[in-house]
Amino acid sequence: MPAGRSEKTGTDFDALAASALARCDVLARCTEREGEITRTFLSPAMEECHDHIRGWMEDAGMTIGVDRAGNLRGYYADLELNEDAPRLIVASHLDTVPRAGCYDGILGVMLGLAMVEALDGRRLNFGVEVVGFSDEEGVRYGLPFIGSRAFIGKLLPPHLARRDADGVAMFAALDGYASAHPDVVSAAHHPQSRGYLEFHIEQGPVLEHAGLALGVVETIAGQSRAMLKFRGRAGHAGTTPMFLRRDALAAAAEWLVAVESAAAAMPGMVATTGQISCETGAANVIPGLVCCSLDVRHASDEMRHAAVQEFLATARSIAERRQIEVEHAIEYDQPAVGLDAGLIALADKAVLGAGVSPRHMTSGAGHDAMIVAARIPAAMIFLRNPGGISHHPDEAVLVEDVASALRAGLHFLHYFPDYLQNHLQRLTESEPDSCTT
Amino acid sequence: MPAGRSEKTGTDFDALAASALARCDVLARCTEREGEITRTFLSPAMEECHDHIRGWMEDAGMTIGVDRAGNLRGYYADLELNEDAPRLIVASHLDTVPRAGCYDGILGVMLGLAMVEALDGRRLNFGVEVVGFSDEEGVRYGLPFIGSRAFIGKLLPPHLARRDADGVAMFAALDGYASAHPDVVSAAHHPQSRGYLEFHIEQGPVLEHAGLALGVVETIAGQSRAMLKFRGRAGHAGTTPMFLRRDALAAAAEWLVAVESAAAAMPGMVATTGQISCETGAANVIPGLVCCSLDVRHASDEMRHAAVQEFLATARSIAERRQIEVEHAIEYDQPAVGLDAGLIALADKAVLGAGVSPRHMTSGAGHDAMIVAARIPAAMIFLRNPGGISHHPDEAVLVEDVASALRAGLHFLHYFPDYLQNHLQRLTESEPDSCTT
Repeated sequence: MPAGRSEKTGTDFDALAASALARCDVLARCTEREGEITRTFLSPAMEECHDHIRGWMEDAGMTIGVDRAGNLRGYYADLELNEDAPRLIVASHLDTVPRAGCYDGILGVMLGLAMVEALDGRRLNFGVEVVGFSDEEGVRYGLPFIGSRAFIGKLLPPHLARRDADGVAMFAALDGYASAHPDVVSAAHHPQSRGYLEFHIEQGPVLEHAGLALGVVETIAGQSRAMLKFRGRAGHAGTTPMFLRRDALAAAAEWLVAVESAAAAMPGMVATTGQISCETGAANVIPGLVCCSLDVRHASDEMRHAAVQEFLATARSIAERRQIEVEHAIEYDQPAVGLDAGLIALADKAVLGAGVSPRHMTSGAGHDAMIVAARIPAAMIFLRNPGGISHHPDEAVLVEDVASALRAGLHFLHYFPDYLQNHLQRLTESEPDSCTT
Repeated sequence: MPAGRSEKTGTDFDALAASALARCDVLARCTEREGEITRTFLSPAMEECHDHIRGWMEDAGMTIGVDRAGNLRGYYADLELNEDAPRLIVASHLDTVPRAGCYDGILGVMLGLAMVEALDGRRLNFGVEVVGFSDEEGVRYGLPFIGSRAFIGKLLPPHLARRDADGVAMFAALDGYASAHPDVVSAAHHPQSRGYLEFHIEQGPVLEHAGLALGVVETIAGQSRAMLKFRGRAGHAGTTPMFLRRDALAAAAEWLVAVESAAAAMPGMVATTGQISCETGAANVIPGLVCCSLDVRHASDEMRHAAVQEFLATARSIAERRQIEVEHAIEYDQPAVGLDAGLIALADKAVLGAGVSPRHMTSGAGHDAMIVAARIPAAMIFLRNPGGISHHPDEAVLVEDVASALRAGLHFLHYFPDYLQNHLQRLTESEPDSCTT
């Protein structure tokens, strides 16, 4: 018996993991632009991607369809189960950012498929629906999570009215999709969807740094985004002595250093300035106006709000001392989303069953699970992401970690009936309407 | 007798100062773009400007011509002086940056003209040549000081081969100018040019801060320009904990703060970052690459070089601690230019004669005087510049300071024969070839 084969069931997890990765490679060739991976909402590349997955799902004995939101949905259930049996959703997204890597999103869908394959026809007293969401990255409409929003009935008229770069409204694109696919089903989730599981690469370096293959997401961090303007006085770089300057860039730099050091001292806090610009932008002009972004995330909304207030107060105090002005605009404030405690406990057991010490994590990025959690109890398991590199062709994952994830997935299926028995279906309250990845 | 009238000569300095400013306003209307002041090398706006000045110079009894480099030259001398009499050059430039103010350059030429007018026909035993240089700002050819370079015979073949935005080579533009002005004279300065005086607004806040109307320039600061690249590791703003970041912008910010504080502690040093850019420039991406400029100026080349080395060492040490890389490229290194000690002493007496305590200054900006000083002993007198604002429509000067400058100019003319007697013509050695304003 090969090392990767389960002694109990004879399942070859290593081979299934290798197959899942090979499928990610095949799907990477479904792209809108030769030489890179770019696959957006309802694109021909996405159609091609669906065609591949449809074939693999059919081979695994699943019933396949696409829904009105362009989500690919494969259902696996014992023939004796009726249509109203409880079901577990295993999902992630099939779209990509421009010039993407191979695994962000896709791998979660391939793991759902591999879980069904690993069952090898064994009976379950619930159905498993593997969903490949049509849009999570928000590239085409500048609105992320189109697929999962539709899945929970939260794709709203203002969303549908948005237009892409060619001026095509989302509702028109969806109508065209439905015409081309006369067998589309409703995008709404089945009322008996009693749990949601999403595997995803971490898109960060935490698990690699901790030497762990898998992590259990407890919370998806809340996020504040602000723009700051430091307004000093432009001046000639040669003729204005240092003590007579009101240098907006020097003020912004002092603030950046202060924010970095304050955030580093707050456990679990991240604060980032990713954009900065000088109005004049000439090497021989003292900057008179500097604009920069501030992105702050934390699992606790209270701590996040307090941090943002502290960072803004620091900016004001630096500005005052330097006799310049600072103003800010909060661009958005997205609350943290806690995942389902019962399913987190189940994911812990599943990860432990795969031989990995379960480590709870906060996801600093948004994911479909965050959207779905508003309607269906949700759990999420991260896979180690070497180098922490994502949204980039160098995005990577280890085959042995994929095998561990698959083992965890099978344990999750094993324990899910206990969960169903112990937990009534709950509708979580928070319904974030504006989210980013 | 009005307050502004000299008791000795009856000269009404206040009226002449007001007239010089009124002429600056007239010339401000000679522009390439309606609603702003933009007047570049050999442009129709410059022709119009020459036409005005030509009329005023003729009324003042001057002989006027344009030279092959497009410089306007007006000569004033006693009829009994022969062509080979020693002469004093009083000059500045007539071109502007885009969206300029009214006084940068122009005011120096108008003061030269007003000095001749103030003489009111009195005899001098030397000639006064008022020159309006055709280009100092370098807007059209990306090469400053075209007029003064030609004046000292340093407009070289590589300069002449440069092309403007329309692809017109400088030699072709000059040939066209000569064809249109068949009476052009040689651009070379007269061999008996024995001194050079330039009045210019300070373009900085030092005199205003010191409460002085005029300042005597001792040195034009040397300048180093470098570009730095901080190369860290891009990462997701939400998923990368603070302690695992290699944030290129945070590193650059720390360096900016360190440079600002180090420069402030070095007397007479100015160090500026006027350009900064992040490669990705997305609010949710930790910057992986940041490029920024460094401009360092000081009267002492030795101190400037030492400061640049110190700033670069600071960058390397910050980068090393943060496990990122930093590289730099020195874009240019322009030595300081000391003005003529004899003429500085004369300018001191002239300024004192105008009732202003003579304060020696370093000019942080380049000026025609810096170019001319390579061939002709040069002096420069700054006028207070309210708010330190220049290269901007808000550029200002006080009429009483212009009157003081004019008084100083007349004292300069008075003392110049003593200078001629005491000093042999000297050719200074330094010949800067690449300079900026």
